[in-house]
Amino acid sequence: MHAVIQFTQSPIAIPEAHTVSREIGAIVEFHGIVRELEQGHPLAGLHYEAYEPMAVLQLERIFQQLHTQSPVAEVTFLHRLGWVPVGHASLYLRVRSSHRAEAFAFCSAAIEAMKRDVPIWKLQRPLPPDAC
Amino acid sequence: MHAVIQFTQSPIAIPEAHTVSREIGAIVEFHGIVRELEQGHPLAGLHYEAYEPMAVLQLERIFQQLHTQSPVAEVTFLHRLGWVPVGHASLYLRVRSSHRAEAFAFCSAAIEAMKRDVPIWKLQRPLPPDAC
Repeated sequence: MHAVIQFTQSPIAIPEAHTVSREIGAIVEFHGIVRELEQGHPLAGLHYEAYEPMAVLQLERIFQQLHTQSPVAEVTFLHRLGWVPVGHASLYLRVRSSHRAEAFAFCSAAIEAMKRDVPIWKLQRPLPPDAC
Repeated sequence: MHAVIQFTQSPIAIPEAHTVSREIGAIVEFHGIVRELEQGHPLAGLHYEAYEPMAVLQLERIFQQLHTQSPVAEVTFLHRLGWVPVGHASLYLRVRSSHRAEAFAFCSAAIEAMKRDVPIWKLQRPLPPDAC
């Protein structure tokens, strides 16, 4: 399994695939977008922070664990940090595998595990965008 | 729910989103790619055929049924027909929704239902590509 894990302060730019294989039969992509309403309150955006060294280690561990149950060829994980306006992506996850069941299982489980175990925080009362 | 269903003889070109909403929090995309090995036999590609009027009706029905369990804002379904070489996409499915659980559930269930109930066939011993 080839894994790419990146944090960025810029808008997420989706990279090309890193592995070439004629046995990739399924690609699942997930985009997590900032919504305007959070628990009924309108927002202009969210401010994301991460403890990056620990986050990368935890994500590597999560991906290796998931790979034992749902073997996949490649996973690409991009997370935007700092101010992310409503309508923009904070998270992009792509999984490439031979079969779709593994790709779907890996992708959705990776997000659940990330939310639970990875030190990434969203601040719902951020500074105004022009102050970030 | 806004649904787009298209069959094409050309390579799949991913369209822009059809709905604008500040309440989209999750986008799940699936690409089904032709693999070289099908039950151990190397292929140059597959030839897809569909009975399009019935396929569109069945897909509309499937999407409406799934929407009652997993409400989503938009679904885009594109299927390539004719000769599809190894490494190219035969299917593209995109689901946009407020929450990721519904998007994942809708997307994976839609593919299962399509494989089971929609008159789309793949021919494993097609004519050579230059004859298609």
